[in-house]
Amino acid sequence: MALLDTLEWRYATKKYDPTKKVAQEDLDKILEAARMAPSSSGLQQFRVIVITNQELKEKIVPVAWGQQIVADSSHLLVFAGWNSYTDERIDNTFDKMNALRGLPLDTTDEYKNRLKAQLSSLSGEQQAAHAAKQAYIAFGLAIAQAAELGVDATPMEGFSNAELDELLGLDKLGLKSAVMLPLGYRMEEQDWLLKLKKFRLPKEEFLIELA
Amino acid sequence: MALLDTLEWRYATKKYDPTKKVAQEDLDKILEAARMAPSSSGLQQFRVIVITNQELKEKIVPVAWGQQIVADSSHLLVFAGWNSYTDERIDNTFDKMNALRGLPLDTTDEYKNRLKAQLSSLSGEQQAAHAAKQAYIAFGLAIAQAAELGVDATPMEGFSNAELDELLGLDKLGLKSAVMLPLGYRMEEQDWLLKLKKFRLPKEEFLIELA
Repeated sequence: MALLDTLEWRYATKKYDPTKKVAQEDLDKILEAARMAPSSSGLQQFRVIVITNQELKEKIVPVAWGQQIVADSSHLLVFAGWNSYTDERIDNTFDKMNALRGLPLDTTDEYKNRLKAQLSSLSGEQQAAHAAKQAYIAFGLAIAQAAELGVDATPMEGFSNAELDELLGLDKLGLKSAVMLPLGYRMEEQDWLLKLKKFRLPKEEFLIELA
Repeated sequence: MALLDTLEWRYATKKYDPTKKVAQEDLDKILEAARMAPSSSGLQQFRVIVITNQELKEKIVPVAWGQQIVADSSHLLVFAGWNSYTDERIDNTFDKMNALRGLPLDTTDEYKNRLKAQLSSLSGEQQAAHAAKQAYIAFGLAIAQAAELGVDATPMEGFSNAELDELLGLDKLGLKSAVMLPLGYRMEEQDWLLKLKKFRLPKEEFLIELA
Protein backbone atom coordinates (compact mmCIF):
# COMPACT_ATOMS: atom_id res chain seq x y z
CA MET A 1 0.00 0.00 0.00
CA ALA A 2 1.34 3.45 -0.91
CA LEU A 3 2.12 5.74 2.01
CA LEU A 4 -0.73 8.15 1.24
CA ASP A 5 -3.21 5.27 1.27
CA THR A 6 -1.91 4.11 4.65
CA LEU A 7 -2.27 7.64 6.02
CA GLU A 8 -5.85 7.74 4.77
CA TRP A 9 -6.62 4.32 6.32
CA ARG A 10 -5.17 5.01 9.76
CA TYR A 11 -6.86 6.94 12.54
CA ALA A 12 -6.26 7.39 16.27
CA THR A 13 -7.93 4.16 17.35
CA LYS A 14 -10.10 4.61 20.44
CA LYS A 15 -11.16 1.01 21.05
CA TYR A 16 -8.92 -2.03 20.82
CA ASP A 17 -9.87 -5.68 20.78
CA PRO A 18 -7.95 -6.96 23.83
CA THR A 19 -7.94 -10.53 22.47
CA LYS A 20 -5.95 -9.70 19.32
CA LYS A 21 -2.17 -9.52 19.47
CA VAL A 22 0.25 -8.01 16.98
CA ALA A 23 2.55 -10.69 15.55
CA GLN A 24 6.21 -10.44 16.48
CA GLU A 25 7.17 -10.10 12.82
CA ASP A 26 4.92 -7.05 12.41
CA LEU A 27 6.10 -5.54 15.70
CA ASP A 28 9.69 -5.93 14.56
CA LYS A 29 8.96 -3.97 11.38
CA ILE A 30 7.29 -1.16 13.30
CA LEU A 31 10.28 -0.89 15.63
CA GLU A 32 12.64 -1.06 12.68
CA ALA A 33 10.93 1.92 11.04
CA ALA A 34 11.55 3.87 14.25
CA ARG A 35 15.17 2.75 14.39
CA MET A 36 15.78 3.76 10.76
CA ALA A 37 14.32 7.24 11.25
CA PRO A 38 16.63 10.19 10.64
CA SER A 39 17.67 12.22 13.68
CA SER A 40 19.61 15.40 14.30
CA SER A 41 23.31 14.74 13.59
CA GLY A 42 22.42 11.04 13.49
CA LEU A 43 22.55 10.87 17.28
CA GLN A 44 19.33 8.84 17.74
CA GLN A 45 18.88 10.72 20.98
CA PHE A 46 15.82 8.73 22.03
CA ARG A 47 14.81 5.16 22.79
CA VAL A 48 11.71 3.10 22.16
CA ILE A 49 10.37 1.19 25.14
CA VAL A 50 8.28 -1.86 24.29
CA ILE A 51 5.73 -2.90 26.91
CA THR A 52 3.84 -6.18 26.61
CA ASN A 53 3.28 -7.01 30.29
CA GLN A 54 -0.45 -6.75 31.00
CA GLU A 55 -0.03 -5.73 34.64
CA LEU A 56 2.33 -2.95 33.68
CA LYS A 57 -0.02 -1.71 30.96
CA GLU A 58 -2.81 -1.62 33.54
CA LYS A 59 -0.64 0.36 35.94
CA ILE A 60 -0.13 2.91 33.18
CA VAL A 61 -3.89 3.47 32.64
CA PRO A 62 -4.28 5.89 35.59
CA VAL A 63 -1.10 7.71 34.55
CA ALA A 64 -2.73 8.09 31.11
CA TRP A 65 -5.83 9.83 32.41
CA GLY A 66 -7.75 6.58 32.70
CA GLN A 67 -7.56 5.75 29.01
CA GLN A 68 -8.41 2.06 28.69
CA ILE A 69 -6.76 1.79 25.26
CA VAL A 70 -3.45 1.43 27.06
CA ALA A 71 -4.59 -1.78 28.79
CA ASP A 72 -6.52 -3.11 25.79
CA SER A 73 -3.67 -2.58 23.33
CA SER A 74 -1.54 -5.49 22.21
CA HIS A 75 1.72 -3.63 22.75
CA LEU A 76 2.48 -0.22 24.17
CA LEU A 77 5.42 1.72 22.75
CA VAL A 78 6.86 4.64 24.70
CA PHE A 79 9.16 7.01 22.83
CA ALA A 80 11.55 8.64 25.29
CA GLY A 81 14.22 11.25 24.57
CA TRP A 82 17.57 11.74 26.26
CA ASN A 83 17.04 13.99 29.27
CA SER A 84 20.26 15.83 28.40
CA TYR A 85 23.18 15.83 26.01
CA THR A 86 26.43 14.65 27.53
CA ASP A 87 29.85 14.30 25.95
CA GLU A 88 29.79 10.59 26.78
CA ARG A 89 26.55 10.01 24.90
CA ILE A 90 27.66 11.98 21.88
CA ASP A 91 31.09 10.31 21.81
CA ASN A 92 29.48 6.86 22.06
CA THR A 93 27.38 7.42 18.93
CA PHE A 94 30.16 8.97 16.86
CA ASP A 95 32.61 6.25 17.88
CA LYS A 96 30.18 3.53 16.78
CA MET A 97 29.46 5.35 13.52
CA ASN A 98 33.12 5.81 12.65
CA ALA A 99 33.91 2.21 13.58
CA LEU A 100 31.15 0.90 11.28
CA ARG A 101 32.50 3.05 8.47
CA GLY A 102 36.06 1.89 9.02
CA LEU A 103 37.21 5.42 9.81
CA PRO A 104 39.58 6.61 12.57
CA LEU A 105 37.54 7.63 15.61
CA ASP A 106 38.79 11.21 15.40
CA THR A 107 37.52 11.68 11.82
CA THR A 108 34.49 13.62 12.98
CA ASP A 109 36.09 15.54 15.86
CA GLU A 110 35.76 18.99 14.35
CA TYR A 111 32.07 18.51 13.62
CA LYS A 112 31.49 16.75 16.94
CA ASN A 113 33.13 19.44 19.03
CA ARG A 114 31.09 22.15 17.33
CA LEU A 115 27.98 20.09 17.97
CA LYS A 116 28.85 19.60 21.65
CA ALA A 117 29.41 23.33 22.10
CA GLN A 118 26.11 24.11 20.44
CA LEU A 119 24.05 21.57 22.38
CA SER A 120 25.61 22.43 25.71
CA SER A 121 24.62 26.07 25.16
CA LEU A 122 20.97 24.98 25.45
CA SER A 123 19.19 24.90 28.81
CA GLY A 124 18.33 21.50 30.29
CA GLU A 125 14.72 21.89 29.22
CA GLN A 126 15.77 22.88 25.70
CA GLN A 127 18.08 19.88 25.44
CA ALA A 128 15.29 17.50 26.42
CA ALA A 129 12.87 19.21 24.01
CA HIS A 130 15.40 18.92 21.19
CA ALA A 131 15.89 15.21 21.83
CA ALA A 132 12.12 14.68 22.08
CA LYS A 133 11.59 16.32 18.69
CA GLN A 134 13.75 13.65 17.08
CA ALA A 135 11.61 11.00 18.74
CA TYR A 136 8.57 12.49 17.00
CA ILE A 137 10.09 11.79 13.58
CA ALA A 138 10.49 8.11 14.49
CA PHE A 139 7.04 8.13 16.04
CA GLY A 140 5.52 9.28 12.73
CA LEU A 141 7.35 6.58 10.82
CA ALA A 142 6.30 3.88 13.31
CA ILE A 143 2.67 4.97 12.84
CA ALA A 144 3.07 4.75 9.06
CA GLN A 145 4.71 1.33 9.29
CA ALA A 146 1.94 0.02 11.55
CA ALA A 147 -0.68 1.24 9.07
CA GLU A 148 1.16 -0.38 6.15
CA LEU A 149 0.79 -3.69 8.01
CA GLY A 150 -2.86 -3.10 8.90
CA VAL A 151 -1.95 -2.60 12.54
CA ASP A 152 -3.88 0.10 14.38
CA ALA A 153 -2.11 2.64 16.54
CA THR A 154 -3.06 5.61 18.70
CA PRO A 155 -0.71 8.59 18.89
CA MET A 156 -0.94 9.65 22.54
CA GLU A 157 0.39 12.62 24.44
CA GLY A 158 -2.38 12.39 27.01
CA PHE A 159 -0.50 11.12 30.03
CA SER A 160 1.54 12.48 32.90
CA ASN A 161 5.12 12.42 31.69
CA ALA A 162 6.56 12.77 35.18
CA GLU A 163 4.45 9.92 36.57
CA LEU A 164 5.24 7.64 33.66
CA ASP A 165 8.96 8.38 33.96
CA GLU A 166 8.74 7.47 37.64
CA LEU A 167 6.76 4.27 37.02
CA LEU A 168 9.11 3.03 34.29
CA GLY A 169 12.30 4.20 36.00
CA LEU A 170 13.25 6.29 32.99
CA ASP A 171 15.20 8.79 35.05
CA LYS A 172 17.76 6.10 35.87
CA LEU A 173 18.15 5.52 32.14
CA GLY A 174 18.67 9.23 31.50
CA LEU A 175 15.42 9.40 29.53
CA LYS A 176 12.20 11.42 29.57
CA SER A 177 9.00 10.07 28.04
CA ALA A 178 7.90 12.03 24.98
CA VAL A 179 4.94 10.24 23.48
CA MET A 180 3.15 6.87 23.55
CA LEU A 181 1.85 4.52 20.90
CA PRO A 182 -0.56 1.72 21.79
CA LEU A 183 -0.72 -0.88 18.99
CA GLY A 184 -3.39 -3.45 18.26
CA TYR A 185 -6.57 -4.02 16.31
CA ARG A 186 -9.65 -1.81 16.27
CA MET A 187 -13.09 -2.93 17.45
CA GLU A 188 -15.00 -1.25 14.65
CA GLU A 189 -18.45 -1.33 16.19
CA GLN A 190 -17.37 0.23 19.44
CA ASP A 191 -15.03 2.93 18.16
CA TRP A 192 -16.79 6.30 18.11
CA LEU A 193 -14.00 8.02 16.18
CA LEU A 194 -14.11 5.60 13.28
CA LYS A 195 -17.67 6.73 12.56
CA LEU A 196 -16.60 10.35 12.06
CA LYS A 197 -15.03 11.79 8.91
CA LYS A 198 -11.28 12.32 9.01
CA PHE A 199 -10.56 16.04 9.28
CA ARG A 200 -7.57 17.91 7.94
CA LEU A 201 -7.13 21.60 7.20
CA PRO A 202 -7.59 22.41 3.52
CA LYS A 203 -4.40 22.73 1.49
CA GLU A 204 -4.95 26.47 1.04
CA GLU A 205 -4.73 26.93 4.79
CA PHE A 206 -2.03 24.36 5.52
CA LEU A 207 0.45 25.32 2.79
CA ILE A 208 2.16 28.64 2.28
CA GLU A 209 3.76 29.04 -1.14
CA LEU A 210 6.61 31.48 -1.63
CA ALA A 211 7.20 31.15 -5.38
CA MET B 1 8.20 0.23 -2.37
CA ALA B 2 7.58 -0.82 1.24
CA LEU B 3 8.30 1.82 3.86
CA LEU B 4 11.32 -0.01 5.29
CA ASP B 5 12.89 -0.17 1.82
CA THR B 6 12.35 3.56 1.34
CA LEU B 7 13.99 4.26 4.70
CA GLU B 8 16.96 2.12 3.68
CA TRP B 9 17.23 3.92 0.32
CA ARG B 10 17.04 7.46 1.64
CA TYR B 11 19.90 9.41 3.19
CA ALA B 12 20.55 13.04 4.07
CA THR B 13 21.57 14.13 0.59
CA LYS B 14 24.58 16.46 0.61
CA LYS B 15 24.80 17.31 -3.09
CA TYR B 16 21.88 18.13 -5.36
CA ASP B 17 21.80 18.38 -9.13
CA PRO B 18 20.60 21.97 -9.58
CA THR B 19 19.28 21.20 -13.08
CA LYS B 20 16.75 18.59 -11.96
CA LYS B 21 13.35 19.67 -10.70
CA VAL B 22 10.80 17.69 -8.74
CA ALA B 23 7.58 17.31 -10.75
CA GLN B 24 4.53 19.10 -9.38
CA GLU B 25 2.68 15.80 -9.05
CA ASP B 26 5.41 14.38 -6.82
CA LEU B 27 5.67 17.58 -4.79
CA ASP B 28 1.92 17.48 -4.22
CA LYS B 29 2.17 13.96 -2.79
CA ILE B 30 5.00 14.95 -0.44
CA LEU B 31 2.97 17.90 0.84
CA GLU B 32 -0.10 15.72 1.13
CA ALA B 33 1.77 13.26 3.38
CA ALA B 34 2.61 16.20 5.65
CA ARG B 35 -0.98 17.42 5.63
CA MET B 36 -2.32 13.96 6.50
CA ALA B 37 0.07 13.55 9.46
CA PRO B 38 -1.49 13.10 12.89
CA SER B 39 -1.06 15.97 15.35
CA SER B 40 -1.87 16.59 18.99
CA SER B 41 -5.66 16.95 19.35
CA GLY B 42 -5.79 17.16 15.56
CA LEU B 43 -4.88 20.85 15.71
CA GLN B 44 -2.30 20.77 12.88
CA GLN B 45 -0.48 23.48 14.78
CA PHE B 46 2.15 24.00 12.08
CA ARG B 47 2.38 25.00 8.45
CA VAL B 48 4.56 23.93 5.54
CA ILE B 49 6.16 26.72 3.54
CA VAL B 50 7.07 25.82 -0.03
CA ILE B 51 9.91 27.82 -1.55
CA THR B 52 10.72 27.55 -5.24
CA ASN B 53 12.07 31.02 -5.94
CA GLN B 54 15.78 30.71 -6.72
CA GLU B 55 16.71 34.15 -5.36
CA LEU B 56 14.97 33.42 -2.10
CA LYS B 57 16.67 30.04 -1.78
CA GLU B 58 20.01 31.78 -2.32
CA LYS B 59 19.21 34.32 0.37
CA ILE B 60 18.60 31.44 2.75
CA VAL B 61 22.04 29.88 2.18
CA PRO B 62 23.88 32.24 4.58
CA VAL B 63 21.11 31.79 7.15
CA ALA B 64 21.72 28.03 6.80
CA TRP B 65 25.39 28.23 7.68
CA GLY B 66 26.42 28.47 4.03
CA GLN B 67 24.98 25.13 3.03
CA GLN B 68 24.72 25.13 -0.76
CA ILE B 69 22.15 22.33 -0.78
CA VAL B 70 19.51 24.95 -0.06
CA ALA B 71 20.25 26.79 -3.31
CA ASP B 72 20.83 23.63 -5.37
CA SER B 73 17.62 21.94 -4.21
CA SER B 74 14.60 21.86 -6.47
CA HIS B 75 12.21 22.95 -3.71
CA LEU B 76 12.80 23.97 -0.13
CA LEU B 77 10.17 23.09 2.45
CA VAL B 78 10.15 24.87 5.79
CA PHE B 79 8.10 23.32 8.58
CA ALA B 80 7.00 26.04 11.01
CA GLY B 81 4.99 25.65 14.20
CA TRP B 82 2.51 28.04 15.77
CA ASN B 83 4.44 30.43 17.99
CA SER B 84 1.68 30.15 20.61
CA TYR B 85 -1.69 28.61 21.26
CA THR B 86 -4.56 31.07 21.18
CA ASP B 87 -8.27 30.50 21.72
CA GLU B 88 -8.92 31.82 18.23
CA ARG B 89 -6.62 29.28 16.60
CA ILE B 90 -8.01 26.38 18.58
CA ASP B 91 -11.62 27.44 17.96
CA ASN B 92 -10.95 27.78 14.23
CA THR B 93 -9.75 24.19 13.94
CA PHE B 94 -12.51 22.68 16.06
CA ASP B 95 -15.19 24.68 14.22
CA LYS B 96 -13.95 23.41 10.87
CA MET B 97 -13.76 19.83 12.16
CA ASN B 98 -17.27 19.87 13.58
CA ALA B 99 -18.64 21.51 10.43
CA LEU B 100 -17.09 18.80 8.23
CA ARG B 101 -18.58 16.14 10.47
CA GLY B 102 -22.02 17.75 10.42
CA LEU B 103 -21.94 18.28 14.18
CA PRO B 104 -23.05 21.34 16.18
CA LEU B 105 -20.02 23.58 16.80
CA ASP B 106 -20.34 23.18 20.56
CA THR B 107 -20.08 19.36 20.40
CA THR B 108 -16.45 19.40 21.47
CA ASP B 109 -16.61 22.27 23.97
CA GLU B 110 -15.85 20.23 27.06
CA TYR B 111 -12.78 18.66 25.49
CA LYS B 112 -11.74 21.94 23.88
CA ASN B 113 -11.96 23.95 27.07
CA ARG B 114 -9.86 21.41 28.95
CA LEU B 115 -7.34 21.54 26.13
CA LYS B 116 -7.20 25.34 26.18
CA ALA B 117 -6.64 25.35 29.94
CA GLN B 118 -3.87 22.81 29.62
CA LEU B 119 -2.08 24.51 26.73
CA SER B 120 -2.35 27.98 28.24
CA SER B 121 -0.64 26.65 31.39
CA LEU B 122 2.53 26.15 29.32
CA SER B 123 5.11 28.93 28.97
CA GLY B 124 5.45 30.62 25.59
CA GLU B 125 8.59 28.62 24.86
CA GLN B 126 6.86 25.37 25.86
CA GLN B 127 3.89 26.16 23.63
CA ALA B 128 6.14 26.75 20.63
CA ALA B 129 8.11 23.56 21.39
CA HIS B 130 4.90 21.56 21.63
CA ALA B 131 3.67 22.85 18.28
CA ALA B 132 7.09 22.22 16.71
CA LYS B 133 7.03 18.59 17.88
CA GLN B 134 3.89 18.00 15.84
CA ALA B 135 5.67 19.44 12.81
CA TYR B 136 8.36 16.77 13.24
CA ILE B 137 5.79 13.99 12.76
CA ALA B 138 4.74 15.51 9.43
CA PHE B 139 8.38 16.12 8.57
CA GLY B 140 9.12 12.40 8.99
CA LEU B 141 6.19 11.44 6.78
CA ALA B 142 7.20 13.95 4.10
CA ILE B 143 10.70 12.42 4.06
CA ALA B 144 9.19 8.94 3.69
CA GLN B 145 6.86 10.10 0.91
CA ALA B 146 9.73 11.74 -0.96
CA ALA B 147 11.74 8.52 -0.73
CA GLU B 148 8.81 6.44 -1.97
CA LEU B 149 8.82 8.62 -5.09
CA GLY B 150 12.60 8.45 -5.52
CA VAL B 151 12.94 12.08 -4.53
CA ASP B 152 15.94 12.94 -2.35
CA ALA B 153 15.57 15.09 0.74
CA THR B 154 17.83 16.46 3.45
CA PRO B 155 16.48 16.80 6.99
CA MET B 156 18.01 20.06 8.20
CA GLU B 157 18.08 21.77 11.54
CA GLY B 158 21.33 23.55 10.70
CA PHE B 159 20.12 27.13 10.25
CA SER B 160 19.41 30.17 12.36
CA ASN B 161 15.75 29.94 13.23
CA ALA B 162 15.50 33.60 14.22
CA GLU B 163 17.13 34.80 11.00
CA LEU B 164 14.98 32.56 8.84
CA ASP B 165 11.81 33.70 10.63
CA GLU B 166 12.86 37.28 9.97
CA LEU B 167 13.68 36.66 6.31
CA LEU B 168 10.41 34.84 5.60
CA GLY B 169 8.26 37.13 7.75
CA LEU B 170 7.06 34.17 9.80
CA ASP B 171 6.48 36.29 12.91
CA LYS B 172 3.67 38.12 11.13
CA LEU B 173 2.08 34.74 10.41
CA GLY B 174 2.38 33.70 14.06
CA LEU B 175 4.85 30.96 13.15
CA LYS B 176 8.33 29.89 14.17
CA SER B 177 10.50 27.81 11.85
CA ALA B 178 11.16 24.31 13.18
CA VAL B 179 13.00 22.38 10.52
CA MET B 180 13.81 22.49 6.79
CA LEU B 181 13.65 19.97 3.98
CA PRO B 182 15.41 20.63 0.68
CA LEU B 183 14.10 18.30 -2.05
CA GLY B 184 15.69 17.29 -5.32
CA TYR B 185 17.92 14.71 -6.93
CA ARG B 186 21.30 13.55 -5.69
CA MET B 187 24.53 13.96 -7.65
CA GLU B 188 25.92 10.56 -6.80
CA GLU B 189 29.52 11.17 -7.78
CA GLN B 190 29.86 14.32 -5.73
CA ASP B 191 28.04 13.28 -2.58
CA TRP B 192 30.52 12.28 0.13
CA LEU B 193 27.84 10.89 2.43
CA LEU B 194 26.47 8.45 -0.12
CA LYS B 195 29.85 6.69 -0.10
CA LEU B 196 29.63 5.94 3.62
CA LYS B 197 27.64 3.11 5.21
CA LYS B 198 24.36 4.10 6.81
CA PHE B 199 24.74 3.98 10.58
CA ARG B 200 22.05 3.19 13.13
CA LEU B 201 22.38 2.05 16.72
CA PRO B 202 21.96 -1.72 17.11
CA LYS B 203 18.50 -2.88 18.18
CA GLU B 204 19.83 -4.00 21.56
CA GLU B 205 20.83 -0.44 22.33
CA PHE B 206 17.90 1.34 20.69
CA LEU B 207 15.07 -0.78 22.12
CA ILE B 208 14.20 -1.34 25.76
CA GLU B 209 11.84 -4.26 26.34
CA LEU B 210 9.70 -4.36 29.45
CA ALA B 211 7.97 -7.71 29.09
